[in-house]
Amino acid sequence: MGRWEPDAGGRFRMAAMELFVERGYEQTTVADIAERAGLTARTFFRHFADKREVLFSGAEQLQRTMVDALDGAPAPSTPIEAIEAALAATAGFFEDNREFARRRSSVIEANAELRERELIKLATLSAALAEGLRRRGVAEPDASLAAEAGMAVFRVAFASWVAAAEPRSFRAILRASLARLQALAASGPSPGNARKN
Amino acid sequence: MGRWEPDAGGRFRMAAMELFVERGYEQTTVADIAERAGLTARTFFRHFADKREVLFSGAEQLQRTMVDALDGAPAPSTPIEAIEAALAATAGFFEDNREFARRRSSVIEANAELRERELIKLATLSAALAEGLRRRGVAEPDASLAAEAGMAVFRVAFASWVAAAEPRSFRAILRASLARLQALAASGPSPGNARKN
Repeated sequence: MGRWEPDAGGRFRMAAMELFVERGYEQTTVADIAERAGLTARTFFRHFADKREVLFSGAEQLQRTMVDALDGAPAPSTPIEAIEAALAATAGFFEDNREFARRRSSVIEANAELRERELIKLATLSAALAEGLRRRGVAEPDASLAAEAGMAVFRVAFASWVAAAEPRSFRAILRASLARLQALAASGPSPGNARKN
Repeated sequence: MGRWEPDAGGRFRMAAMELFVERGYEQTTVADIAERAGLTARTFFRHFADKREVLFSGAEQLQRTMVDALDGAPAPSTPIEAIEAALAATAGFFEDNREFARRRSSVIEANAELRERELIKLATLSAALAEGLRRRGVAEPDASLAAEAGMAVFRVAFASWVAAAEPRSFRAILRASLARLQALAASGPSPGNARKN
């Protein structure tokens, strides 16, 4: 087996996900993953620090995709319009990998340590979006509120998208979820009615 | 020292927080906490499983407070109005303990494991609020979106409240943050303009 393998990362990812689903995450070793991928453990460790990284190595790229789209939103965009641009950019990131995303979600759901790691990833993303909004001149608390609202839409839309019976595209679900959040917010307590203290 | 100590839990909490701020969380032992509180380690372990629990033992009570308020919101409330009732109920929970909350926040901010635990606590709270909304007959994705939006308001308001220079009450900040989120959502992309696909 040569040192250089075309798309070895992709083969490891696919093999790992199959094994995580078949045997469980805890029960799968790097040696198992390498064997299933037809590669060596040595090659595995040139691509990933450990088996957990197979599930989370896309996080940085996702963050870059979202922040780039936020930075690139037209100047007159409102904070939520800029956040919508960041959300829309994730559709290209995920759309072709629904089956992978479904397996990944079920593996993460089944393991407390992985759920924690996922929460940290999402919190890091939210902080990066808030930082991006502040770079655009959005003051606090608006920057953090808009970023958190955007991540709420992302989380809820993602959970719908990976559900077995969901036929809509991720992009369509994102758009519908944001519209629902806007409708919910509009039906909230009137700020004018707020009692003082 | 007697077995029974009036408000031993409170004394341990105060002593622990002082030491966490003075020496750092990692460097503080249960023996240190007990000594500072003038109580025994044995008594400590009747109140808390470990030193981390000193920081998180209020989580269940906070969740109960919020869910009870959500359940008690008048029947015709919209989802966001019910969430606002849950948020308003937390003001009573925190308002008298601002200095404790400030110290707690600084301790958690400085420690990755504690930040993870805090994220898990907040995600659990969000799930409990979504569940409460579903009990009220709110369908998905609205229940999860409204709960996540409420937790976004909570997180941002809490961070403002514990900031050094913030003079407003937690309740006033909560109310202002929710109003800001509503204003932001209203200035978002028009659902009517959403392209199809």
